[in-house]
This record gives sequence, structure tokens and C-alpha cells, in this order.
Amino acid sequence: MAAVMSLLVVGSIAFDSIRTPRGEVDEILGGSATFFSVTASWFTSVSVVAVVGDDFGEQQFRIFRDRSIDTRGVEQVPGRTFRWKGEYSGDMNQALTLDTQLNVFETFVPKIPAAYLDSQFLFLGNIMPTLQLQVRRALPQLSATALDTMNFWIHGMPKELASVLATVEILLINEAEARMLSHQNSLKKAAEIIRKAGPRVVVIKRGEHGATLFSPESVFTVPAFPLDDVYDPTGAGDTFAGGFMGHLARTGDLADANLRRAAVYGSVMGSFAVEEFGLGRLLRLTADEIESRYREIKRLTHFDA
Amino acid sequence: MAAVMSLLVVGSIAFDSIRTPRGEVDEILGGSATFFSVTASWFTSVSVVAVVGDDFGEQQFRIFRDRSIDTRGVEQVPGRTFRWKGEYSGDMNQALTLDTQLNVFETFVPKIPAAYLDSQFLFLGNIMPTLQLQVRRALPQLSATALDTMNFWIHGMPKELASVLATVEILLINEAEARMLSHQNSLKKAAEIIRKAGPRVVVIKRGEHGATLFSPESVFTVPAFPLDDVYDPTGAGDTFAGGFMGHLARTGDLADANLRRAAVYGSVMGSFAVEEFGLGRLLRLTADEIESRYREIKRLTHFDA
Repeated sequence: MAAVMSLLVVGSIAFDSIRTPRGEVDEILGGSATFFSVTASWFTSVSVVAVVGDDFGEQQFRIFRDRSIDTRGVEQVPGRTFRWKGEYSGDMNQALTLDTQLNVFETFVPKIPAAYLDSQFLFLGNIMPTLQLQVRRALPQLSATALDTMNFWIHGMPKELASVLATVEILLINEAEARMLSHQNSLKKAAEIIRKAGPRVVVIKRGEHGATLFSPESVFTVPAFPLDDVYDPTGAGDTFAGGFMGHLARTGDLADANLRRAAVYGSVMGSFAVEEFGLGRLLRLTADEIESRYREIKRLTHFDA
Repeated sequence: MAAVMSLLVVGSIAFDSIRTPRGEVDEILGGSATFFSVTASWFTSVSVVAVVGDDFGEQQFRIFRDRSIDTRGVEQVPGRTFRWKGEYSGDMNQALTLDTQLNVFETFVPKIPAAYLDSQFLFLGNIMPTLQLQVRRALPQLSATALDTMNFWIHGMPKELASVLATVEILLINEAEARMLSHQNSLKKAAEIIRKAGPRVVVIKRGEHGATLFSPESVFTVPAFPLDDVYDPTGAGDTFAGGFMGHLARTGDLADANLRRAAVYGSVMGSFAVEEFGLGRLLRLTADEIESRYREIKRLTHFDA
């Protein structure tokens, strides 16, 4: 097993206001880089590139630092931090966005501190594909880059997205967006088409149905862990990515069997994320709880050949 | 392992007209009892109780007999056989019913031939709950009964459905209908509530997402087998039930480990069902193909602890 390798995330830091059938919260810490880095910090050393406004204080920075997350790449600029307001109802599989205020995120240009230039693993959270490509190009030494994206970029910047897709090893994408990107209903065909466009590994996130991993060698499915209650699905996808990439970075092993383990850790961490609003559960975890739920997913899927 | 036990199904036999993005067929053989019995015939000896009209000919009966299915309980009465016309689009997860002609099925009263009275396993396909209960009561010697139902009965005959639910060991039900029946969004809670109402085993069918089995001992998930193309989802749920109950009946073993194997066989058979219109693929199967796909699902879900 290789040495633990450093993991860098570029994405958003936001204040989220969320309503679900389980309750309501106002302006809690969120964003793709936040969920990803807090989750991955359970596995490896993580550094963050993001932007916040002057309303972002020591209280928020301390959440990252308490998890030993390197925030030297979190640029603080005049103005307000990104705000998102959304609502979930029914089976909570889809968020209804009530309000988006990009604020300082609108003019975000990722700046990689010199200290981050030896990062081995990179997660490009869901930001503008041109910015994702710029970050990818600034870090030629990477062992593996994973990319996330969304319908907005698939429709709005397809060429730019194709350019960055061609440079990454791993795509983590929602089911509906995999279909949109590939123009295929069959997820198997969708993954084949996407893999031809660049990433050798495609992980299709299916929310409460788990995830499917398509690698050069095989297909692997992992279920979502069955929960009594889902409190808040916000950040579950980035949390999955944090567990997945966190495990890859801590092991430095990209072989098929380890990609499978990484997907299980992704599912484990995603299941914790939704048990409380925001980062609540992810900050109170123990390493034992993570390993215990990993074994529970083993029992959940085991059958005799 | 106990001796192979006989399996009885009570349900519908129909002529289906189906349109999907892959094509269109007119008045092909379908119905819950048809899909279930043809599927289960790959595992054990099966007998059918159903009703057909005088438009049902030797050509149709031969399809059952070629699979050694006992059709002595298929009553032929004057009138037309049940007709269903439906369409699937998009991700094909839901059928749009274009036309339903109950015909002879409208006045169907199941009659159990004396030769069937020693059946050990029973599948009560999706028919009126009062008829399901009547069949269940006529067969007190059963080892296990599995029940299917639908939104129409959940809303329209909740008390009658509760009466039959209290008498069965296994409920096979769609995800949306499990939520409807239990008034719970969490499938884990839904299964707990349903299990208190009677069945010790609840299998929640999730279409392209596979199935989840809730038993007294554990929870088990099996994915759907990833396919290049889905041609026609009609009958997939009854096919799952046919594989599940077929395996239970051929082994006579209701222990947790064997319920898991049965759910995998359900998924295996469901995956074949949707690869062609109607019964096409299910009639051309080989035992080797079934075992091979079972092993493929093992590879699809395996990861190291």
C-alpha cells in the first residue's frame, strides 16, 4: 500500500438555508468544497481552494481547522459569501431551489497556493468547466483527478465540459445528469459513452438507490445504507465524493478492488450526511462508526454464490 | 435441503398491447399468472389458477404446457380474455395505461382444482384482496404464501387488503406502493410497519434499482442487472416474484441466507424479462444462462471487507 497522499478540492463554500419535511435551518455552513473536505478529512489530509466573503468568520474557519483541513487556499474577498436556499419534499430525491445568491462566488478564480502544488489527488467540485480545466492544467503531477458537474454546465457549456472531461480519470455524476450528458437511457451505455470521452472510471450516484461504478475491468453497485429517516439530502453527493476520493488518497491504490472499497466508503459517508442537517453528523463521527457502517453494507449485500 | 415443493399461482392471464421506445407489439400473451408461472417453471413445478375467454386457443395453452406448467386451474369461459394496452416512455419506470378491458377477468372467482390442494407454496398475484383471501383460506396446508398488490387496492379496499396481509408470510410490493401502504417515506420504516401487519418477509421491488428484502433477521439489497437496453418492462415484477418463489419452492428453505439467494434469482429473472417484449426471452432461456447471470450479480456486488 502506498503512502497517504494529499487530496485537494476546488469548489464552493456557501451558507445554505434548507427546508425539508424534518425541519428548517437558516444560513448553515455548506457548499461542495465544505462537504467534500470535512468528509475526506476522516481519511486523509485535505486542502481546499474556494472563495468566501467578509461575512465568513473565525467560527466558520474553525470548523475546517478542527478537522485539520488546510484552508490556505480559501480566499477571503470583500462582499458576501455564496448563499443557497432550497426545499425538499416527498421522497426528497430532488431539491427545489428557492434562491441562489452567487455573491463572491460569481467572480471566483481558483488560485492554487504554492504549498498545494504537490497534491496527488484532486476533486473538481461542481464549478464552471473552464475553471475546472484551469485547475487541472495547473497541477500536471496529479495521480488522479475526479470531476463533478451538473445539468447547468452540460447544457450551457458542453464544449468546455468536454475539454475538462478529456483530462480527468474519474467522473462522479448523478444518474439524471449521466443520461443527459450521454443522451442514453441505459446507464451502462451512458457510462461507456462517457468513458470514451475521457474518464476511465465513471461513478453514477443514484441517491437513495446507491451508486454504480464503471471501471475498465468491471461494473460494481453499492446500495445506499437503509435509514430510518433522511433529514437533509444537501451535500450527499459531495459527501459520497469525499469518502470515495478520501479512501483512494489514503491508500494511493487505483486498482479495481480498491475502487470498489472507495465506492462503499462513499456510500457510508453519504448515509451519515443525510442523517442530520448540514455538517452535523459528519462532524460528530468516529472512525469506528465509519468502519462499522462499512461492515453493515457488507452484510446488506452479501449472498452465497 | 427439502424436496422440491409445488408452487401455485393465482392471477391474471391477458393479451397485452405495448408500445415502448424500442417498438410496439399487439395482443401478445401476458398477465401476472403468465409471467410468474413461465418464470417459476425454470425452478420447480408450477400450477396456475386463472380465467381466459373463448378467444384463448391451443396456441396459447401450448406455451404453458411446453414449460410443463399445470393449467388444469385455467378456467375457460364464454367471452373475451382480459386485454391491457400500455405505453412506456423516457426511463420506462412507469407504464401509462391506454386501455383496460377486464372482460372475463371482471367476474373471475378463483377455483382451486382438487389436484392443487397439496400445493406447498402460493403466489397471490395482483387481484382483488377478497379473492386473494378466499384462495389463501382454501389452502391451509401451505408452507408459505406471497402476496402482490397495487395502488388501486391499497386505496380502494384497505380493510380487505389488511385481512389478506395478515395471513401471508411474504409481501412483494413496488417501492411507491410500499410507501403508500405504510404512509412512510423511509423504506426501512415502511417495511417495519408492513411486517407488523402480517408478512414476516417484505420484498420491495425498485425496478431498475433492484430490490430490498426485509426479513426478521436482516436487510438485503440486490441490484438490477445492468443492461444495454430495456425493451419492455411489462411483467418484470411478476417475473421477479416467479424467480423468488420458484427458488424458495425448489429448495423448501425459508432461512435468511436462502431468502437472499431467492431475491437474487428474482433479479436475474427480472433482467431477462425486460430484454425482449412479452415472454420472448423467458421462453428461450437455458439453465446455464440463469446460473451465469446469478454469478454476474455476485461479481457486481462483491467487495472486500
